[in-house]
Formats: sequence, structure tokens, C-alpha cells
Amino acid sequence: MNFPQVNGHRLLRRIQELGQIGCLPGGGGTRLALTDEDKQGRDLIVGWFAEAGASVYVDKIGNIYGVLGGSVDTPPIMTGSHIDTVSRAGFLDGCYGVIAGVELLQAIGESGLTPDKPIAVTVFSNEEGVRFSPDLLGSRVIAKDIALDEALAVETRDGKSFQSELQRIGYAGEIEPWKFIPESFLELHIEQGPVLEATETQVGVVEALQGHSWWQVEIVGCANHAGTTPMHLRKDAGVAAMQLACRLQEYSALDHLPNVTTVGTFALEPNAVNVVPGKAKFTIDFRDSDDGQLRKADALLQSEVMKLQEQGFEVKLQTLSKAMSVKFDEGLCSLLQGVTESIGASNRRIVSGASHDAQMISRACPSAMLFVQSSKGISHNPKENTPDDDLVLGAQILANAMWTLATSKS
Amino acid sequence: MNFPQVNGHRLLRRIQELGQIGCLPGGGGTRLALTDEDKQGRDLIVGWFAEAGASVYVDKIGNIYGVLGGSVDTPPIMTGSHIDTVSRAGFLDGCYGVIAGVELLQAIGESGLTPDKPIAVTVFSNEEGVRFSPDLLGSRVIAKDIALDEALAVETRDGKSFQSELQRIGYAGEIEPWKFIPESFLELHIEQGPVLEATETQVGVVEALQGHSWWQVEIVGCANHAGTTPMHLRKDAGVAAMQLACRLQEYSALDHLPNVTTVGTFALEPNAVNVVPGKAKFTIDFRDSDDGQLRKADALLQSEVMKLQEQGFEVKLQTLSKAMSVKFDEGLCSLLQGVTESIGASNRRIVSGASHDAQMISRACPSAMLFVQSSKGISHNPKENTPDDDLVLGAQILANAMWTLATSKS
Repeated sequence: MNFPQVNGHRLLRRIQELGQIGCLPGGGGTRLALTDEDKQGRDLIVGWFAEAGASVYVDKIGNIYGVLGGSVDTPPIMTGSHIDTVSRAGFLDGCYGVIAGVELLQAIGESGLTPDKPIAVTVFSNEEGVRFSPDLLGSRVIAKDIALDEALAVETRDGKSFQSELQRIGYAGEIEPWKFIPESFLELHIEQGPVLEATETQVGVVEALQGHSWWQVEIVGCANHAGTTPMHLRKDAGVAAMQLACRLQEYSALDHLPNVTTVGTFALEPNAVNVVPGKAKFTIDFRDSDDGQLRKADALLQSEVMKLQEQGFEVKLQTLSKAMSVKFDEGLCSLLQGVTESIGASNRRIVSGASHDAQMISRACPSAMLFVQSSKGISHNPKENTPDDDLVLGAQILANAMWTLATSKS
Repeated sequence: MNFPQVNGHRLLRRIQELGQIGCLPGGGGTRLALTDEDKQGRDLIVGWFAEAGASVYVDKIGNIYGVLGGSVDTPPIMTGSHIDTVSRAGFLDGCYGVIAGVELLQAIGESGLTPDKPIAVTVFSNEEGVRFSPDLLGSRVIAKDIALDEALAVETRDGKSFQSELQRIGYAGEIEPWKFIPESFLELHIEQGPVLEATETQVGVVEALQGHSWWQVEIVGCANHAGTTPMHLRKDAGVAAMQLACRLQEYSALDHLPNVTTVGTFALEPNAVNVVPGKAKFTIDFRDSDDGQLRKADALLQSEVMKLQEQGFEVKLQTLSKAMSVKFDEGLCSLLQGVTESIGASNRRIVSGASHDAQMISRACPSAMLFVQSSKGISHNPKENTPDDDLVLGAQILANAMWTLATSKS
């Protein structure tokens, strides 16, 4: 099969060019959703869509679509990601997937090939959720996870609505967000974790996104003099909290129950060198791609809390956030794996710990993701990086997979 | 043997009366060293000394002595404690021991008895060390742990010297602080811990004061995404710190190595729910009455730190404070125990976790302490309390022991 060939130099140059918009003197860049910087980034992508010969559409939630070939009424083969960022971000998160899509469209135009089905590249609005909450807003509306009206009404902290900001930057489109429900969706992204680099694997075929269960735990014991209170007469909230935190993290390390557990925040009261802690407060972040494992972890936590209560501690347990896991389409995973192997690149199945637009789109159509390495696993950070060769490789695998889907009979 | 009989009502009334000076609307009271409130308290005690017929002396560091009977050139049998407080303190810490001493002098006067040796009751300056550091300043100077000049030069945070404040309140005396080095010293105090109450024991014969070793530990690992970083690829500073803290406290709980270990402060960085902690900082408070055990605990900590360093963590270890333990005089402990048993009160040997003036005086002469119960072990707190009967009992045991010493041939 003849595949459109991506131009690596152009791909890398465009990634750098988009990264200039909103870049900061101290390193990294900030391009929050629907700001002037986001508008500049959108304009740049729209110009590249036009250069590639694609038709450009904008929907009512501000998602931008570059579409090439086929009939407008045929469900497209879609890829895409986002170009909004967190504060002081790196230059790859989201942008890489969008620009690889732009490159696919341009490579098709240059190849003289014609797809049987339309190929669409989407720039989703407000993936990061920094300026407007919730995150994944553009893809949520497509998946009808949130109603369009409700999404347009969300506001910044200083009271600017999503709708008014879309209008202000000129990206309040006319079409319905669910007009282009695709036949299949693929998202190319950096891993944002260390697994591929640590295992010297070039690409990861993402078969699932982890769900999460976040808790806040508050344990009340009894504050006392650290010199005069014997160990067996203490009700030390700090020791109880640390033992619980260690035990939960050990279940993950030894038995993957759940896949990962993190105690990221921890505080003691009164927090004095010579006082036995009377109160401890900490958070637990459980993640797993199997919701059953998450439910088991939640039950484990609750049974551990009951043991502490039986020992006379007062314990308050509060849910901070919950999200179900996502299983990607096995057919698309196999396709990505086959394409990768046919060009001789090393690969492994991988589970994403972070959220992505594909998580929402997977509710509307068969979806999957492809990861390239993140150097040292660093992301949401100016130090975010991926070797150039891997960026070009990932874009070519995406192109081959998209082309296979757009030219297959179905 | 005829003993001077303490007047329980007068003892309790005087404790209340001293407690009125510096009392706060919200409960508790504050009488920091060498403030106007401290002066009022000192004046009250000096008045009671006079009422008891004692001679009053003030030394150059502001310690007040009420002395009754015997020759001025004979080393006295001494008791005493302090009347300065921490902020928002209870009404018993220190004051109880001083007022029990006052009661002893008055009871002797009323009994018509005459001691063979002088009996001295001392009010030590600045025991708590809140307004002037170091603590135990009056007794430190007597024990020559700190030079008189150096002690007089210590300053408050706003630059007022100990000497100038002594002069201001009228308690810069003429005599040398080591003029009254006693033959024996006894200090009566509340336990400030829960052991006596928990074991339903009336008094504690204090055979030792614990030494302490305070450390600050900082562990640097690697911050990472909590969703995307597998457990086996983490360098989680929080887990390393909690495991170390739990292990050290377990050594104390199971093997008394050392007697007590407390992790009272703990902090994580960046302290976010979804980030694997990159840094953890916490304190360790080791205490034991056996300095060898403290040295073993320090060595244990250092070997645990080396293990963490071998695992790739960066660890900084810093000493915050160290003090050697004190063993009290066995003869005086036996005397206190004998006196207690002869009046049918339950007692046990006990080790003090807190610091007391007796710790310094024990360097100059044979010393020991007697404790009465602290309700729920609470101290340095407006809720500090002891049953009235126990306060009266403790004062009578002190009187009997002091009288025995002051009438024995030596």
C-alpha cells in the first residue's frame, strides 16, 4: 500500500512555530483556552489547514475541523488533540497531535492520493480546563457528556462566559458539535510518563485510560507532650495516618490494587517538634484502568478506616473526585500495532494515567491513542521533551493508520 | 517523728491566688519571666515568705530564697520550682512546687518545731524560657552551666536584657547565685504526663529526667505525574519519609529504642493530590533517660538514612537540639518512697520527659523530684489540672521528706 509520507522537517518546524505563541522569558509557555494567545494559535492552524487544501469548519463550542476528501455526509476518519495549555507548559502536550494531523492532510495533498472516506483533523476547545472548568470541554460536548448550553455558560473566575470569549476571539462557529461524529478516532500524544523511555520502546499503543478515585482523609487522635507520653498511651494521629498511607501504597506496589496509589498531600496538627500529633489530614489518588480494581481499593480504604475507628480514632473520609476508566477499541489498537510493526518500530501496549480528548470521543465512536516517549517522563513543565526522530516516527505511524482506515471498505 | 502539718485549704487557696495574676478572659494565664505579671507573682511569694517568718534573699540572676532556721553558713535543705509560665498556661506548672515550699515554711513556724539545718525554698528565674532563652536560666547559673554575665546579657526579641528587666521589676539581687548550694534538693511538680493517672498511682518518685535528641530530616526524591508514573519507577520522597518515620516510632513502641520517639512535624512538596512527592521534610524527637539508648537511636537513624541514600534519595540530616539525661540521687528517691509508703500513699518510680530546674541543681548537689497526677496528662494548657487531695498529699510528702533531711545527723 502507498502511504502519504510526512515531511519531518516541516512537522518539527511547525511544532516550534506554534510553541512561540505565548512563550515566556523564563522558559515554557502559556496559552490558556480562548485567550489572545489561543486565538493566535488557532489562526496559525487554520492557515495550515488551508495550505493543505482542507476545508475548515468551526462548531458552536469552538472546535475546529480541517477536512479533506470524501463526501461531507460520510462519517470521517478523525484524528486530533488540543492546542490550549496549562500555565508555563511545555511545547508538545496536545500541539504534537494536532500538528501531526495537519501534516497528514498536507502529505495527502502532496502525494496525489485520494482517500475513500473524508479525513478530519480536530482542534478541541479547552482540553486543559485551567481557565474554564470542566476540562475536555470541546470533546465533552461532542460526546454529550455536558449539554452545549451548559458548556457555553461556564465562566472564568472573573465572570467571562465561554460563549462571550469564543465570540471575542472569532471562534463561535455555526455547526453542531456532533455533526462530524467519526467512523473512527485516533489521537497521537506524548506519553507524559516514563514507561516508554524506561523500557526503550519507541511507541505505546494505548489500550486504556485509567479511571481515578480521589479521597481526603482526616484522622483525629489526641495531641500530647512528646516527652511525657509513653508510646502505649498515645493516640498519635500522625502515626495512624502514615501507617495507613504506607499500607495503601504497598498494596499498589505489590499487588497492583489499584494500579497506582499516591499520597500527594499530608499535614499534621499542631505540627510542633515536641507534640504528639492530634490531627493528620492527607489525600489519596487511586488510579486503575479496571473500575473493579478501583472499587476494591475504595472498599479497602473504607475497611482500613473502620479499623482505625475501632481503635478510637475519629476519621472523616471525603470523596474529592471520581472518574470511570476507558477501554479503547481493540480493532484500532491492533491496527496501530500492526502499522508500527510493519515499519519496524518497537512498541508495547500501554495504559494512560492522564486524561485526553479521546476519552470523551470514545463514547461516540471506536477510538484509540498512540504515545511517543516523554523524556524522563516530564510533562506540564517547560522541560517537556521528546526526541525529534520519535516525533516524526509517531506522525508517520498515525498517517499510515489513518490512511488504512480511510481507504478500507466498511 | 513529729512532722510539720501542711494546711491544705491555705495551700489550695494560695495556688488559686497566684493563678489570678496574668489570667486571661478565654481561660488560662500568661506570666512570662520578668514581666509586670512576674513581678506581681514574686511580690506575692515574698509576702508569704515573710508571713511564714522566713528570711528572704534575692541573688544576682533574680532567684528568690525564703530561708528558715539553722545557721546561714550551713548548706540548706532546699526545695523550689518556678512561677513564670508559657503563654496561656495552666495554674499548676511550677507554681505548685513553690507554694508547697511556702506552706512547708509556714507549717514549721506554726508547729513550734525547729530544724537542725536551714530549710530554703527557691523561686528560680525564667524556667520556661519563652521570653528569654535558654530556659532554666536561674538554675543554670547556680549549676554554672552558663556564666552569670552571659545569663544577664541574654535579650528579649525586642532587645531588652535580662539584667535591665531584673532591675526594672526590682529583683536584681546582691548575693551570688551559688551562695546557697544545698546539701540536698527536692522539687515537687505535676507530672505533665498521663502515667500516674492511667496507673491509678497517687505519686511518682522521679528517678531520672530523659535526655533528648532532636533531628530534622529532608528527603529529596523525584516529583512526577501521579497517574502516569508506575509504582516501581517512582522515587517518592513522601513514602520514603513515612516509612522511615513509622519504622523509628515502631522501634520505640516495641523495643523502647529509645523510650519515646515522636514525629511531630511533616511536610511534602509540591503537596498536590496528583503529584508524586519530590521532597519530604520532618522532625524526630528521641527521648530516653539512658544516654546510651539515645546514642543508639541516633546511630539507627543514621544507618536508615544511609540505606535511603543507597536507594538514590538525597537526604539531609540536621541536629535541632540535644540534651543529656539526668539520674537523680538514689538515697533521696528511697527517702521519698519511704515517706510516701509510711503515710499509705500509692507510688511508683517514674522518669520525667519534661525539663525541670532539678535537672540543673542535680549537678550541684544530690537531688530528686516528686510528681503528682496531671489529669489526662494535659499541661502547658488552660486545662491543666490535678485533684485537690493529690495536691495536698504531695505537699505533705514533701514536708515530711524535707523535715527528715533537715533533722537528720550528717
